Amino acid sequence: MREAYHEQLQDLAGELATMCDMAATAMEKATRSLLDVDLGLAEEVIGDDVKVDEERARSEEHALALLALQSPVATDLRIVITTLHAAESLERMGDLAQHVAKATRRRHPQPVLPDQVRPYFAEMGRVAVHLARRAEEVIRTKDIDLARQLEDEDDAMDDLHRHLFSVLMDKEWPHGTAAAVDVTLLGRFYERFADHAVSVARRMVFVVTGKMPGSEDQH
Amino acid sequence: MREAYHEQLQDLAGELATMCDMAATAMEKATRSLLDVDLGLAEEVIGDDVKVDEERARSEEHALALLALQSPVATDLRIVITTLHAAESLERMGDLAQHVAKATRRRHPQPVLPDQVRPYFAEMGRVAVHLARRAEEVIRTKDIDLARQLEDEDDAMDDLHRHLFSVLMDKEWPHGTAAAVDVTLLGRFYERFADHAVSVARRMVFVVTGKMPGSEDQH
Repeated sequence: MREAYHEQLQDLAGELATMCDMAATAMEKATRSLLDVDLGLAEEVIGDDVKVDEERARSEEHALALLALQSPVATDLRIVITTLHAAESLERMGDLAQHVAKATRRRHPQPVLPDQVRPYFAEMGRVAVHLARRAEEVIRTKDIDLARQLEDEDDAMDDLHRHLFSVLMDKEWPHGTAAAVDVTLLGRFYERFADHAVSVARRMVFVVTGKMPGSEDQH
Repeated sequence: MREAYHEQLQDLAGELATMCDMAATAMEKATRSLLDVDLGLAEEVIGDDVKVDEERARSEEHALALLALQSPVATDLRIVITTLHAAESLERMGDLAQHVAKATRRRHPQPVLPDQVRPYFAEMGRVAVHLARRAEEVIRTKDIDLARQLEDEDDAMDDLHRHLFSVLMDKEWPHGTAAAVDVTLLGRFYERFADHAVSVARRMVFVVTGKMPGSEDQH
C-alpha cells in the first residue's frame, strides 16, 4: 500500500512535468507563429491547448483520489496541494501561449509585430521557453538550486519587458496605436508566462524544503 | 467531532467570502483612485493588498489542517480543494486591483485616462465590483441560480472591453501611444478581475452540484 502510494506521488510529479513540457512546446510554436507569420502553426497551438486542459483535469483527479484513499499528512499532503496549484499555473501558461497564437491568427496575413520589436519577442520567447523547460527539470529532479536560479533568469524577462515598454512609450513610435495595443498585450502574455514558470519552480522548492523561498512577487 | 468538522467547512466558506469582500473593496477604491486621480486612495489599495495575501495564507492553512485531521472524502474533499482554488483566484483579484492603483500612482499627478475613455472605466469598475459582490453572495448563500447569472453579467464586461478596444484601435486615437498602452493594460486588468470572479462563482456551483457548469472560457 505504502509503495503504491509513493508511486502515485511520483506519478503526480510526472504529470506536472508533462504539462510543463506541453506549455513550453506551445509557447515555442506560438512564438514561431508570431515571428514567421505562420497561420498553420498558430492553429496547431490553438487546437492543442485542450490537451493541456485535459492533462490538468487528469492530474487533479489523481490528486483527489490520492487524498481520498491515502489521507496523506504533513509533507505528503503539502506535495499534493502544491501539485494542484502548480497544475493551475501550467494550464494558465498553456492559455497564454494560445493567446499569442490567436494574435498571429487575428492579424494574418499581416504580421502582428512591427520589425522594430521583433528581436524583443524572439528573445522573450526564448527566455519563456527556457524557463518552462527549467521548471520541468526542477519538477523531475527536485533540484532546489536550479529552482532558485530560475528567479534570476526571470529577471532577464523583466528587463526585456521594461525595454519593450520604453520603445512603445517613445514619442517617435511610428507604427500606430493598433500595433501598440497588440505589442502591449503580447508583452504581458510573455511576462505572465514567465511568472507562472517561476511560481511552479518555487512551489517545488516548497515541496522539498517545506518553505516558500521569500515572498512571491506577482507582477 | 463531526460537528466541529462541519463548522470548519463553514469557516472556510466564511474566509473565502471575506477575501471576496476585500477584493471587491480594493477594486472599488482602485477605480475611484483612477477616475479621481487620487494618490492617497491608490496608496491605500497598494498597502492593503498584503491583507488579502495573508487571508489567503490563513485559509490555505485551515484547509490543510482540515485535510490532515479530518480526511474528508467525496463532496467534502471537493469542497476543500475548490476552496483552495477559489482562494488563489481571489488573491489574484486583489493583485489586479493593486495593478490599477499602481497605474494611478505611476502617472500622478497626471490622470492615467484620457477623458474619452473615462466612462468605460467607470462602467468596467462598476461591473467588476458588482461581480465580486455577487460572487461573495454566492459563497455565502450557495445560490446556484445566482452563480449562473454571473456569467451573463460578465458578458457586459466583455462588451465594454471590446468597445474600449475599438476606441483604441481607431485611427483617430489622438492621445498618443503611452496612453494607449496604459489603457490597454488597465482594460485587461478589469477583464481578468471579472473572469476570476466568475470562476469563483462557478467553483461554488461545483461545490453544490458536483459539476462544473459548461466549459471554462479563459480569455
